[in-house]
Amino acid sequence: MSDVKEYCGLFGIYGCEDAAERVYYGLYSLQHRGEESAGIASTDGKDIICHKGMGLVSEVIKPPMLKSLKNPIAIGHVRYSTIGSSNIGNAQPLVVDYYKGKVAVAHNGQLTNAKRLREEFEANGSIFHTTSDTEVIVHLMAKPLHMMQKNLSLLLQQLRGSFSLLFLTPDEMVGVRDPHGFRPLALGRLNDGYVMASETCAMDQVGAEYIRDINPGEAVYIDKDGIRSEYYCSQKYIKPAFCVFELVYFSRPDSKIYGESVHLFRKKLGAKLAEESPVDADVVISVPEGGNSAAIGYSHASGIPFDRGFIRNHYVGRTFILPEQDRRHRIVELKLNALKETVEGKRVIVIDDSIVRGTTSKSRFGLLRKAGAKEIHVRISCPPHRYPCYYGIDFQKKGNLLRLIAHQKKFDNF
Amino acid sequence: MSDVKEYCGLFGIYGCEDAAERVYYGLYSLQHRGEESAGIASTDGKDIICHKGMGLVSEVIKPPMLKSLKNPIAIGHVRYSTIGSSNIGNAQPLVVDYYKGKVAVAHNGQLTNAKRLREEFEANGSIFHTTSDTEVIVHLMAKPLHMMQKNLSLLLQQLRGSFSLLFLTPDEMVGVRDPHGFRPLALGRLNDGYVMASETCAMDQVGAEYIRDINPGEAVYIDKDGIRSEYYCSQKYIKPAFCVFELVYFSRPDSKIYGESVHLFRKKLGAKLAEESPVDADVVISVPEGGNSAAIGYSHASGIPFDRGFIRNHYVGRTFILPEQDRRHRIVELKLNALKETVEGKRVIVIDDSIVRGTTSKSRFGLLRKAGAKEIHVRISCPPHRYPCYYGIDFQKKGNLLRLIAHQKKFDNF
Amino acid sequence: MSDVKEYCGLFGIYGCEDAAERVYYGLYSLQHRGEESAGIASTDGKDIICHKGMGLVSEVIKPPMLKSLKNPIAIGHVRYSTIGSSNIGNAQPLVVDYYKGKVAVAHNGQLTNAKRLREEFEANGSIFHTTSDTEVIVHLMAKPLHMMQKNLSLLLQQLRGSFSLLFLTPDEMVGVRDPHGFRPLALGRLNDGYVMASETCAMDQVGAEYIRDINPGEAVYIDKDGIRSEYYCSQKYIKPAFCVFELVYFSRPDSKIYGESVHLFRKKLGAKLAEESPVDADVVISVPEGGNSAAIGYSHASGIPFDRGFIRNHYVGRTFILPEQDRRHRIVELKLNALKETVEGKRVIVIDDSIVRGTTSKSRFGLLRKAGAKEIHVRISCPPHRYPCYYGIDFQKKGNLLRLIAHQKKFDNF
Amino acid sequence: MSDVKEYCGLFGIYGCEDAAERVYYGLYSLQHRGEESAGIASTDGKDIICHKGMGLVSEVIKPPMLKSLKNPIAIGHVRYSTIGSSNIGNAQPLVVDYYKGKVAVAHNGQLTNAKRLREEFEANGSIFHTTSDTEVIVHLMAKPLHMMQKNLSLLLQQLRGSFSLLFLTPDEMVGVRDPHGFRPLALGRLNDGYVMASETCAMDQVGAEYIRDINPGEAVYIDKDGIRSEYYCSQKYIKPAFCVFELVYFSRPDSKIYGESVHLFRKKLGAKLAEESPVDADVVISVPEGGNSAAIGYSHASGIPFDRGFIRNHYVGRTFILPEQDRRHRIVELKLNALKETVEGKRVIVIDDSIVRGTTSKSRFGLLRKAGAKEIHVRISCPPHRYPCYYGIDFQKKGNLLRLIAHQKKFDNF
Repeated sequence: MSDVKEYCGLFGIYGCEDAAERVYYGLYSLQHRGEESAGIASTDGKDIICHKGMGLVSEVIKPPMLKSLKNPIAIGHVRYSTIGSSNIGNAQPLVVDYYKGKVAVAHNGQLTNAKRLREEFEANGSIFHTTSDTEVIVHLMAKPLHMMQKNLSLLLQQLRGSFSLLFLTPDEMVGVRDPHGFRPLALGRLNDGYVMASETCAMDQVGAEYIRDINPGEAVYIDKDGIRSEYYCSQKYIKPAFCVFELVYFSRPDSKIYGESVHLFRKKLGAKLAEESPVDADVVISVPEGGNSAAIGYSHASGIPFDRGFIRNHYVGRTFILPEQDRRHRIVELKLNALKETVEGKRVIVIDDSIVRGTTSKSRFGLLRKAGAKEIHVRISCPPHRYPCYYGIDFQKKGNLLRLIAHQKKFDNF
Repeated sequence: MSDVKEYCGLFGIYGCEDAAERVYYGLYSLQHRGEESAGIASTDGKDIICHKGMGLVSEVIKPPMLKSLKNPIAIGHVRYSTIGSSNIGNAQPLVVDYYKGKVAVAHNGQLTNAKRLREEFEANGSIFHTTSDTEVIVHLMAKPLHMMQKNLSLLLQQLRGSFSLLFLTPDEMVGVRDPHGFRPLALGRLNDGYVMASETCAMDQVGAEYIRDINPGEAVYIDKDGIRSEYYCSQKYIKPAFCVFELVYFSRPDSKIYGESVHLFRKKLGAKLAEESPVDADVVISVPEGGNSAAIGYSHASGIPFDRGFIRNHYVGRTFILPEQDRRHRIVELKLNALKETVEGKRVIVIDDSIVRGTTSKSRFGLLRKAGAKEIHVRISCPPHRYPCYYGIDFQKKGNLLRLIAHQKKFDNF
Repeated sequence: MSDVKEYCGLFGIYGCEDAAERVYYGLYSLQHRGEESAGIASTDGKDIICHKGMGLVSEVIKPPMLKSLKNPIAIGHVRYSTIGSSNIGNAQPLVVDYYKGKVAVAHNGQLTNAKRLREEFEANGSIFHTTSDTEVIVHLMAKPLHMMQKNLSLLLQQLRGSFSLLFLTPDEMVGVRDPHGFRPLALGRLNDGYVMASETCAMDQVGAEYIRDINPGEAVYIDKDGIRSEYYCSQKYIKPAFCVFELVYFSRPDSKIYGESVHLFRKKLGAKLAEESPVDADVVISVPEGGNSAAIGYSHASGIPFDRGFIRNHYVGRTFILPEQDRRHRIVELKLNALKETVEGKRVIVIDDSIVRGTTSKSRFGLLRKAGAKEIHVRISCPPHRYPCYYGIDFQKKGNLLRLIAHQKKFDNF
Repeated sequence: MSDVKEYCGLFGIYGCEDAAERVYYGLYSLQHRGEESAGIASTDGKDIICHKGMGLVSEVIKPPMLKSLKNPIAIGHVRYSTIGSSNIGNAQPLVVDYYKGKVAVAHNGQLTNAKRLREEFEANGSIFHTTSDTEVIVHLMAKPLHMMQKNLSLLLQQLRGSFSLLFLTPDEMVGVRDPHGFRPLALGRLNDGYVMASETCAMDQVGAEYIRDINPGEAVYIDKDGIRSEYYCSQKYIKPAFCVFELVYFSRPDSKIYGESVHLFRKKLGAKLAEESPVDADVVISVPEGGNSAAIGYSHASGIPFDRGFIRNHYVGRTFILPEQDRRHRIVELKLNALKETVEGKRVIVIDDSIVRGTTSKSRFGLLRKAGAKEIHVRISCPPHRYPCYYGIDFQKKGNLLRLIAHQKKFDNF
């Protein structure tokens, strides 16, 4: 899924002595949602301090910084990006000064009317420091009309597209989900305080308890007077349309997304595949990690035993550079090795979560053939993708077609 | 297994245009055998060039170095060590000059007579640059008596303890295994050349084909005249005594060790556990990665379904530093999260490969209890450890006792 | 002079194939004006690319970046700051998007009405990303009223305080000096193009020829139609008031500042000291580098021979960290050593450019006493400082008084 | 002097609570003698701990290391090398284990019989870890014959060539100078302890007092019983032949070398040049820093005023990398700028310490011509070099000839 962009992780804590440190732990659990940049903004009730930069949480945030962030409210963000568009200016949380003081914003999603809003602002004399659509949100926030409001409803009504948002001011934390609920955002309790997170696995991390999801069209305000929920738009605009990719591969299996266990959902996909596309075989294997849950589901449903068919080399990471540029296919082989003992002479069902360009998949299945598999039956747990997505998943260029063929084409050439 | 030391990885290639680059790939596959230091020595038939340093292969060896190493013979080494004893001087391959020219040595194992030999050498005027027992080997090599020999037999007969060795001279590569065969060393073919490796998974990596293990007491010499095997000691000293920990947890599941598939061996351990210690339960889970193969074996043998019970955070790595020193238990929770949906209200059998100090295990099983497991049945695939080991596994201090209790004590306090 | 802040270096080139690379060289010559951050913005006529960061020019700008900046127009900036206030957000050039497109600004000086302007902007709905007063300038630029202007006059009339500015748009470079001419900015010619620089030494560096200073109250516009000068305010507001510290210590001796050779000016200060405060002595020495020119001037005027009295250790730099925090006085001794052979038994006149807190000076003169000087006569080339400065030199806290005592107090305790 | 190799700096302290930390400061003062590698070895009376590595003292030795070195005896070393031959294995002090325990050696100089001794050792079964000639010394030390001696005389008699040495054992520090006294080594007192240093400026640094030079052929032993001096060879072999380059450019002007003030020596060279090669001129300038002392000497002797003719950019350092490889001449211009006000229309005498290849000098004098000098009279303070040197100064390849022409050739083409 290397060409999907704009998925990010959000984590916020209100009312906990060491909020910044816990946000740090929470972001560790959301790191898979974004490896490009990381940041934490926290407040002591007066000022907002923000540390952010390019890289992993562990690279950007250092323990001494957290010591200087002993604040009761903090929000954090991790950001994914395809190579090339990465840019320190786009790292979040975005912190700005405006009439009411400082505000920090963390955004997961993509606004479809950002360009139009930006042009309006510029025509009226505003300047922009980043290329991020998130900057439009803080400009809206600073509009005198919006500043007079007691809540964010008027502002949020201007936004189109997908947005799960965390706002931090010196005395308040706000969590928002767009009327479609495109991206997840969950609410939890931590002692006397509250937590909001893109995935519930991050709540487990800090010892928080999941309460419920923020609902589509809802804004949840938390301040010293407690927690209050408001729907910022009329009910007719609220049309849930959750992104399926969260369940299929973005999220961690130990998270609840849209109130649903990711692991169980994937097991159900596997079971459904066993039902839809049964085949007589000796063993079910997965392409780790993505295919693990679905493979177990397939195995349980079909009765065909599950076994390990690939071993992953965990040292082949983000920073791996191949000595020779023209041997890029090597990286697939470095990452995964086929387990001959499992597949040799066997009829193998291999489960993966997706096929994007097909080249990586082809290399992987080739490893099985080389290891002596008698038959290779590929099953992909992601449902077919038929239409382009304008809410943050970029399939327009090439992913689209390939994904469609995933369920139409016979894989004769693998 | 964090307090076991002195296990290392060896990889060598003879007769391949880009030997150094392939050794680099091979070491990537052996990285789990040693994260402390890495090194590659190669020769163009005249000089020996060595790059080594502290850290992972990817940190120590950079692509431009490999370009300067376009040599047909190369050996590499990765080294493990407990914190504190790490030392750049002990990084291998060890390269020295002696009367016959340059020689490089890479060693996996521990000599039991190194101290005595060293004292003899020092009494005769020799100097030592490192604290490594490997340095004794090159001193032996340089002895005029040994230099006159046409092979290494006389030298190798002096060594006691465990040693798998690779030697590199400008025109020869030699692989050696001690008379007990304590540590593994396998021989493979790569086109017209040869490969030697601690584990066969590294052969898969470079496209080599496993031929057989170097035998206990055997030295295999490879030069321009081909390959020849010699037993350097008389048959009566050859008493195979393989280290069980290789099969139980050191090695990668996709390797053959002592001619045996590691994955299948661990599955058999799991099956044996199911037979020895059956229990009526709902689900079998593993502590990843170590327990994966045995858990599948247990599941297949018992008929109790296997499922994922822990999710591992792959971003929690070697360099992870906790903001607060006194919260070290946090690291366990950051690394693994229990999968509530799998264990809640269930009778759970959890398979791990070992219990060392017990503290980490206790934290892990605690996660299951917190996630709502009704019953937790722990099964450890490693057989009980009854006697201390003097061949490179350091159990003398504390691991010893704890390992013994692993099969005696009831885990009431978990 | 370690507690003076807000002095920076500007360098811009218009009409030269490798403008960005030459700006890089120019900034090298201006590095002494600011070690905190560095940046270069350049344009290809369409977009503006900016590389900036914390640190020295050589740390921030890497050769490969310059290759991607093969643009005919470029401006650069180096920035000084006291420890603690440093902040990547304040690094310059500041590049923003507004209605007309992109613009980059580099600023040397300090606006006295920045706070008021900022409050007005915020009251009208603007947001601020930095704490720098320079951001006010780009907000002014984006005001619809100002955008309609054909030049920057209306904008520049809003600014109060000290400002030498360079603007870069995709087709134009503009240089501006405030009506007092507080900070320098010089104009030069480079082949068919133009150069603007804080100091002329940077012009020497790129092979440019000094034409003249930008005048107080003047804006110089350079585009494809050539160069044109405009005074943006009426003559009555133009009241030259140059910062004396530029001549006394900020600038390099090989620069012309305010049309005056820095080296000759300092020699004249030395000669004046010889006239004002003569003393019968054996040798004139300087505290290097600051006192060198004045000491030569003093020597020439008084006829007392100049010699080297201190030797500076050039390895004691910015990044020097003392092993023990409580031995900070050691750093003075590491930086300078007294030359016993020059001062022992002699009556020594020592010339320095300034005394700030007095503690460093005290340590230095103590070295001379230890080296055996019979008499130590201190002469400071900087004239007495009687009033606070609101244009970028921060003496309010402590420097003020100390500087005054420099000419009143007898140095009995040295 | 960029192609002279094998000059290094030595510094040792005996009998001072924080010896390692003071050696650190001392090495800072000797940094100009070697920028390639640095190291400190110290002892607590039992073990020897050594920290060394490639780079500057400040890069290699970090404050926390010094805390672990709170030992009363320590020696340190900085090493120079031409690019390419640098090698971590050759960093010093060299620390080895031998029969008597641990010993550390630091060496400044070059042995002329190292190759022969090495071959003898190898023929007898010794191994070598480095390419450094210093390793021969520790092999000699470990010879049973030498071990039986109560002092080092027998060992030192085997050495030929140039060697100033510091030895450190757990209870003793020894300083040695070769019978020619080729390289300097001075003895000083620090409270109740002793200091040995290549240059006395390092003694000033730690507050030590210069006593005298170690004499040619002398070994000075310091242990708990005090200090004792021995001549290790008979008087007939002691033939002082000091390296003139120490006085002419290696050493710092604030050092005493061979009992002589470097600054005064260079002033005398300048005075001698004024006498030997007088010329009617307006101003004397120097190429900083090397020519400073001689230029002052020339000025004082000739009565022609000294002034600053070049300004050096102190930011152009070791790590400077030019954006374009083919513009290497730029580096000269970046480093030095001619001071037009000093030289324009003047008859200029320019003093430098040496001319090596001539290319750099040519660029520099060209700057003066460009700055408008009417006449340029070059005077070089280094005496002509007529014969090759085998004691550590490598002129064989090209420096030799060029240095000779420095006093023969008319510089018509400058």
